[in-house]
Amino acid sequence: MADENKGWGGQLPEWVHEQAVAWRKHLHQHPELSFEETETAQFVEDTLRSFGGLIISRPTKTSVLARLVGAYPGKTLALRADMDALPIAEENTFDYVSQNPGVMHACGHDGHTAVLLATARLLVEQKERLHGEIRFIFQHAEELPPGGARELVEAGVLDGVDWIVGEHLAAQLPVGQIGVVYGQMSASPDNFTITVNGVGGHAGFPHRSVDTIAIGAQIVTNIQHIVARYTDPLERLVVSVTQFTAGASHNVLPDKVTLKGTVRSFSEQVRKQAEEQLQRIVAGIVSAHNAQFEFQYVYGYDPVVNDEALTRIVEEAAIEVVGKERVVHNPPGMGGEDFSAYQRKVPGTFINIGAGNIEKGIVYPHHHPRFAIDEDALANGVALFIKAAEKLVDWQS
Amino acid sequence: MADENKGWGGQLPEWVHEQAVAWRKHLHQHPELSFEETETAQFVEDTLRSFGGLIISRPTKTSVLARLVGAYPGKTLALRADMDALPIAEENTFDYVSQNPGVMHACGHDGHTAVLLATARLLVEQKERLHGEIRFIFQHAEELPPGGARELVEAGVLDGVDWIVGEHLAAQLPVGQIGVVYGQMSASPDNFTITVNGVGGHAGFPHRSVDTIAIGAQIVTNIQHIVARYTDPLERLVVSVTQFTAGASHNVLPDKVTLKGTVRSFSEQVRKQAEEQLQRIVAGIVSAHNAQFEFQYVYGYDPVVNDEALTRIVEEAAIEVVGKERVVHNPPGMGGEDFSAYQRKVPGTFINIGAGNIEKGIVYPHHHPRFAIDEDALANGVALFIKAAEKLVDWQS
Amino acid sequence: MADENKGWGGQLPEWVHEQAVAWRKHLHQHPELSFEETETAQFVEDTLRSFGGLIISRPTKTSVLARLVGAYPGKTLALRADMDALPIAEENTFDYVSQNPGVMHACGHDGHTAVLLATARLLVEQKERLHGEIRFIFQHAEELPPGGARELVEAGVLDGVDWIVGEHLAAQLPVGQIGVVYGQMSASPDNFTITVNGVGGHAGFPHRSVDTIAIGAQIVTNIQHIVARYTDPLERLVVSVTQFTAGASHNVLPDKVTLKGTVRSFSEQVRKQAEEQLQRIVAGIVSAHNAQFEFQYVYGYDPVVNDEALTRIVEEAAIEVVGKERVVHNPPGMGGEDFSAYQRKVPGTFINIGAGNIEKGIVYPHHHPRFAIDEDALANGVALFIKAAEKLVDWQS
Amino acid sequence: MADENKGWGGQLPEWVHEQAVAWRKHLHQHPELSFEETETAQFVEDTLRSFGGLIISRPTKTSVLARLVGAYPGKTLALRADMDALPIAEENTFDYVSQNPGVMHACGHDGHTAVLLATARLLVEQKERLHGEIRFIFQHAEELPPGGARELVEAGVLDGVDWIVGEHLAAQLPVGQIGVVYGQMSASPDNFTITVNGVGGHAGFPHRSVDTIAIGAQIVTNIQHIVARYTDPLERLVVSVTQFTAGASHNVLPDKVTLKGTVRSFSEQVRKQAEEQLQRIVAGIVSAHNAQFEFQYVYGYDPVVNDEALTRIVEEAAIEVVGKERVVHNPPGMGGEDFSAYQRKVPGTFINIGAGNIEKGIVYPHHHPRFAIDEDALANGVALFIKAAEKLVDWQS
Repeated sequence: MADENKGWGGQLPEWVHEQAVAWRKHLHQHPELSFEETETAQFVEDTLRSFGGLIISRPTKTSVLARLVGAYPGKTLALRADMDALPIAEENTFDYVSQNPGVMHACGHDGHTAVLLATARLLVEQKERLHGEIRFIFQHAEELPPGGARELVEAGVLDGVDWIVGEHLAAQLPVGQIGVVYGQMSASPDNFTITVNGVGGHAGFPHRSVDTIAIGAQIVTNIQHIVARYTDPLERLVVSVTQFTAGASHNVLPDKVTLKGTVRSFSEQVRKQAEEQLQRIVAGIVSAHNAQFEFQYVYGYDPVVNDEALTRIVEEAAIEVVGKERVVHNPPGMGGEDFSAYQRKVPGTFINIGAGNIEKGIVYPHHHPRFAIDEDALANGVALFIKAAEKLVDWQS
Repeated sequence: MADENKGWGGQLPEWVHEQAVAWRKHLHQHPELSFEETETAQFVEDTLRSFGGLIISRPTKTSVLARLVGAYPGKTLALRADMDALPIAEENTFDYVSQNPGVMHACGHDGHTAVLLATARLLVEQKERLHGEIRFIFQHAEELPPGGARELVEAGVLDGVDWIVGEHLAAQLPVGQIGVVYGQMSASPDNFTITVNGVGGHAGFPHRSVDTIAIGAQIVTNIQHIVARYTDPLERLVVSVTQFTAGASHNVLPDKVTLKGTVRSFSEQVRKQAEEQLQRIVAGIVSAHNAQFEFQYVYGYDPVVNDEALTRIVEEAAIEVVGKERVVHNPPGMGGEDFSAYQRKVPGTFINIGAGNIEKGIVYPHHHPRFAIDEDALANGVALFIKAAEKLVDWQS
Repeated sequence: MADENKGWGGQLPEWVHEQAVAWRKHLHQHPELSFEETETAQFVEDTLRSFGGLIISRPTKTSVLARLVGAYPGKTLALRADMDALPIAEENTFDYVSQNPGVMHACGHDGHTAVLLATARLLVEQKERLHGEIRFIFQHAEELPPGGARELVEAGVLDGVDWIVGEHLAAQLPVGQIGVVYGQMSASPDNFTITVNGVGGHAGFPHRSVDTIAIGAQIVTNIQHIVARYTDPLERLVVSVTQFTAGASHNVLPDKVTLKGTVRSFSEQVRKQAEEQLQRIVAGIVSAHNAQFEFQYVYGYDPVVNDEALTRIVEEAAIEVVGKERVVHNPPGMGGEDFSAYQRKVPGTFINIGAGNIEKGIVYPHHHPRFAIDEDALANGVALFIKAAEKLVDWQS
Repeated sequence: MADENKGWGGQLPEWVHEQAVAWRKHLHQHPELSFEETETAQFVEDTLRSFGGLIISRPTKTSVLARLVGAYPGKTLALRADMDALPIAEENTFDYVSQNPGVMHACGHDGHTAVLLATARLLVEQKERLHGEIRFIFQHAEELPPGGARELVEAGVLDGVDWIVGEHLAAQLPVGQIGVVYGQMSASPDNFTITVNGVGGHAGFPHRSVDTIAIGAQIVTNIQHIVARYTDPLERLVVSVTQFTAGASHNVLPDKVTLKGTVRSFSEQVRKQAEEQLQRIVAGIVSAHNAQFEFQYVYGYDPVVNDEALTRIVEEAAIEVVGKERVVHNPPGMGGEDFSAYQRKVPGTFINIGAGNIEKGIVYPHHHPRFAIDEDALANGVALFIKAAEKLVDWQS
C-alpha cells in the first residue's frame, strides 16, 4: 500500500492496492506480444464481467472495451490502458517473472491494465450517480506500428467521446510523483530509407563509375541543413542518419549505397516539411551527381500533443492525489506512443505516473531486461483516474 | 649575337641578330594594347614592303599578312607572330623602355614580331627556289579574349595552308634551349560565374530565409567531385573557385551569393564535360535547397594541342639549331594561348624559344613589370623558323 | 484613455493616461542615443523630484535611480524602464516626430520611461502604507552592447533587491493584450568572426596554394553539425554564417577568407558549448587542410530567462489588468535585451505590453522608421506595474 | 606460328613457337598459387638444366635463377618472367584447362614462363659470342603482395645487373602489336582503412552521441580535396573510398564507422603526400567533431616507371620485331605490378606483348575466368627478348 509520502493511494479503499498488485503480477507472468494478446484480453474481459454493470465488447480480436453508462445523460470520458508486452528476455529474479520465454512486460503495460481494471471496479460502484458515460479502453499492440490505437479509433471506440485520458507508469519518475506535459509530449518516430543507385566499378577509374559513397556522404552532409537551417529554432526536430552501408572491398566502387535513419518531430507541419525537405535534398544531390535514388518514408505514430484545457483539469486532479509539490512538468520525450491516434479524434492528455524507486533498486529504463516498477504507483494511477473522472463528468451528489 | 653555346644563330648572316634586335627595341619602346596595334601594324607593313617580293594585306585593321609565293607550286606553311602588348606599367630601367605609359611588351611579342620580320627577309631572298608558299601572319590581340587568331582564321588567312608553326620566347627557359611539347601544351582558361539567389533575412530566423551562404558552401564542396571523381586520372583538369562574395553584416543572411572561378583543361571533351558537370552540380544543389541560380560560362582560348607528326619534324629542326642536348621536352602549362585557333583548322605546333638568363638577371616571369628577354634568343627563333621551313616545304636545290 | 476593451487602464486615476502620453510625446521629440541620454536623464530626474518622497540618484552619468522607501521594513521590488533611442531617421508624419535628426525612439523606450514615471508618481502617494521598498530604475543604453544594465548592476542598483520586473511595449501584440513568457524569453545575440589564412596563388596551380575558399566552404558545412547534431533537440540554438568574403578575380586563389555570423542561444550552457564547438570545428577543419585561422567571439547580451514563480505572480496581475482572455503566452524571441543583466543577479520577469493597432495603422515593427505605438498601451503598462507591486510587496491596509 | 601479319616470330627457328606453346600448355594445366609454385619451379629448373650451359639456382623456395655467363666480360642484362597463378575457377572449355580446381593461369604468367624458357634456350646457343651475362629470373608470387620480386632483390638476383627487361602478355592489345610506355606505367595500388570511433546512442538524442556517420561523411567529402586541390594537375592520382560501413538499424546512432579505400599514384612523392594528407584530413575532421580515429595505410607495389633511355632501345628492338606501325605507346594503367621492385634497384622497362584476338574470341580481360591468350604472341615475346639482348649486351660477331 502506498505510504503517506507516496501519494494519494491511501485514500482509496483498502482492497485497491492489493487487488491491483495481484492483477499486475498475474499479467506480468503471462506477457503476450503485440496483436497476440489473446489470453490477456480474455483475462481482462473475465475480470470486467466479474464486476457487473458494464457493457463489454471486443472491438478487435485482442482488445476489450467496457462501457459504464450512467443513470443520467452527460459527457463521455474515455480512459485507456495498453496491454501488450515486448520481445525481450526478462532478467529479473523476483518470483513472478515472465513465464513466456523471450517475452516480457518491460514497459509497464501490465500495470496499466491492472490500474484500469481497479478503476473500473471502483467506478462501477458509482454507476447510479453518473451523468454520462465512462469508457474503459484496454488496447492491444501499442508497441508495434501501426499500433492498436488506430484500429480502435477506426472501430469506433471514440464515437461520442468528449475526452480521453491515458496514463503511463514512468520508471524515470520517482514513485509518488505525477508528471504532466502541456502540448508536445512525444515525438513522431518516423523512419526513412534512401538508396542511391550509381555505377560500380574499379576504384582506380572513378570516372567510369558514379561514386555512390561520395554521393551518399554529400547527402548526409546536406541533410544537416534540415534541422540547422530549415526549421524554426523554437521547434523541435531531429533527423539522424543511423545506417550507411556501401561496398565490401578496397578496390571496387559499389553501385549502391543504403542510408537509413529517423525523423523525430512534434508537430504535423514540421514532420511533413522534414519529409519533403529530405526527399528534395536527396533528389537534388543525386541529380547533381548523375545518380538515381529510391526514397522510402515510413510514418511512425503521430506526436502526442496534450490538450491544454484538459491537461489543466487533470493536473488539478493530480495535485489532489499527490500534492502540489509532487506534480512535475515533464519535458517532451523523443520516443513514440500511439495514444496520439486518439488525440487526432478527441482532446486527450497523457499522464506520467511515477514508478521508479532508487532505494529499492528500481532504476532500469523502459525496455530493459531488468525493468521493474514500484507497485505503490498502481494506487496512484487508480486515484488519478478517479479524481479526473470526478472532474470531467458530472456525478449526482 | 648568340655565342657558340647559345645555339645556331651564329650560322645566320651577320645582319640577322643586329637587325632583329633593332626592330625589337623599336617595338618595345612603342607598345600597343590588343586590338589597338595601329602603329605596330604600320611598322610591320612598311618593313615588309621594304623587302620586296611579298604580297601584303591587312586581314583586319591591325594585323598584317605577308605571302611569299614561290616560283613553283607546292605546300603552304604558315608562320605566326603576335604583336600586342599588355596594360602593365614597365619597371625596367634600360634605355629602350616603353614610351607608352601603362603599356608594356611584358610577354615578348615585340621579339616575336622582330623574329618573324627577319625570317621573312631571309626567306624572300630564296623566293626563286621555293615550291609552294610561306605565309607570314603578324597577329593582333593575343592577350585579350576572344583573341585575334580567331578573327584571322575567319578572315581566311589559313585557307590553303598545310601547316602552321608558332614560336614563343620563354623567360623560364634558358637562352640557347628550345622547348617542344607533344600533344597538350596549354590549357583552355575558361571562367565561370555562379549566382545563387535565395531569400535574405534575420540571421536569428534561418527558417524564414533560404541560406545562400550555406548553399554556396555546398556548391564549392560538391564541385570538387568534378576533378576528384568525374575525370580520368590520366587527364588534366583544374576547377578552382576563386571568389565567394556574400553578406555584409553579422546579423543578416544575404539573399545572394556570387561565386567565380576558372576551369583549366587540355581537351575539348574534358572541357565540355566540366562545363556540363559544373552546371549540373549547381542546379542539383540549389534544387536540393530550394534556391535559384544563374550560371555563366565564358570560354577562354581552346587548348593548344601540338600535332605529333609536325612536332617531330620541327624538333629535328630544333636539334639542328641548338643541338640535341639543348632541345627539351616541356610539360604543359596552365595558361592560355590563342594559337589554338589556328590548330582547330590545320595541324600546328607551338615552340618555346629559351630567352631567360639568370646571369644577366633576366629572371622575371611573363607579365611581370620587369619582364625581359635575352636578345640572343631572337636569332635562334629566326633559325628555327628557317630550318623548319626548309623541312616542311620543298626548295629547288 | 484606454477604452473598455483595451484593458485595465480605466481603473487608474484620470490623469494617468493623459500625463503618460504627454511625457512620452516630449521624450519622443527629444530622442538621444545610447550612453548620450543627458537631457532625457535630466528630464526624468526633474520629473521625479517634482513628485517628492523619492530618494533620487545618478548611478551613471545618464541613468536615474529613484527609491521609494516605505514606512515599514519589507521586501524590495525593482521596476525598470530603458530610455535610449536609435540612430534611425524617423519617417512618421505626426506632429511630435523626432526633433533630433537621424535619431528616433523606434523601439518604444519613450513609452517605457513615461510608464515608469507615472507608476512612480502613483506609488509615491502610497508611501506610508508600504512595507519595504520600490526601486525605479531608469536605465540608459539598452540598444548598444555591452549595454547600460550591466553598468547599473555593477553600480549596485540591485543591492538588496528581491525581484525585478520590466516591461516592453510590443508593436506585434495588439493593444489591450499583455504577453507573458515562462523561462527563456530572448536569445543571447553573440557574433563571431573567423579568418582562414592559407596561401594564395594562380588558380591553375591549386597545389601551390592552400585554398581558403574550399576550406571556408567546409567550415560552413561542418558548422551545421552544431545545431543539427550537437544540441539537445529540446533546446534552442541558431548558428548562422552571414558573411563569406574571399577573392576578387577569376584567376587568383585568395590567401584569406573572412566568415562572419551570429550565435543565438537561450541558455548559458548551450551558448558556451556553441562557442567552444564553433572554435573546435574551425580548428579541426583548418588543421585538416593545412591552413591557419583566427577566431573572434563577441558576447551579446545574456538571454532573458524569466523566473517561473515571479512570472506566475505577475501573470495574475496581468489578468487583473486586462482579463484572462487577453493575457497571452508569447514564444521566445531571437533578439537580445540587456534586462538579462539584472536577472543574473535577482529573479526577474520581463513582460510584453501590447501596443499595436492594425485599425490605426500601427503595424510597423520595432526599429522601423515608421514604428509607432498605440498610446492606450501606456496606462496598461502603469496598471501592470501597480498590480504587480501590490502583490510583490506588502502594503498596510 | 605467327603469320606474316603477326610479327617477327617467323624469323625465329621453327621450334620456338611449337616448343613455347607446348610448355605454356603444360603450365596452364598445372597452375599454382603465389608462394606455392613448387611444381612449376621444378619444371622450370628441369627444363633449364636440359639446355646445358646455365648456372641454375633457387634464390627462394619457388623461384629459379638461371645465369648465362658469356665467354667475355661485359654488361649484365636481366630478363624476368613471373610464374604464379590465381585463385580463380577456370571457365574455359579448351582441352588443356586447369587441372587444379579453383586455380587458374588467368593473367598469362604461364606464357611469360614459356617465353623466357625459349629465350634462354635460344641464347644459350650463343653463349660463346656473349660479352657479359644474361640473367633469367623466373619469379614467384607476383599476384600476392608483398610479392616475390622484393624477395628476389633481397636475395641478390640483381647484384651486378645493368638493366632489367620484363614482358607482359596483354589481352587488351591485339596479337602482333607491342606496347611500350615511357615513364609512369602502373600505379601503386595502396589501400587504407579508417575507423572513426565516436559515441553511439539513441537516434532521437544526437547530442548525447558523437555521430560517426556524420563525421564519416565529412571525411569522404574532405578527402576529395586531395586530388582536386592538393595535387599537381599534371600528376596522376586517385583516392577512392570504396567501403562505408556503419550502423544496423533505424534508431541507433552507431559508435563506429569503417571506411576503406585505395590510393593509386605513379610517383613516390605523390604517394607519400597522399598518405600524409589523408591522415591529416581524418585527424582534422575527427578533431573538429570530438571523435577518435584509427588509420591504417598498406603499401601496395611501387609504381612501375620505365627508364627512358632503356625503353628507347627496347622500342627499337620492338620495331624490328613487329614493324614500326605495330609498336604502340600505351597509356599508364591503374593496376599494380611488382616489376617495380627491380626498377628501384636498376633501370628497367616493362613491355606489353599483344595477345588479344577478337576474331578468335580472345577478348576476356585479365583475371577473368575465361581469360585466354593468342599463343602466336609467344614467339613475339621471345623475339623481343632476343632483339633487346642483341642491343643491350655485346656479342662477338
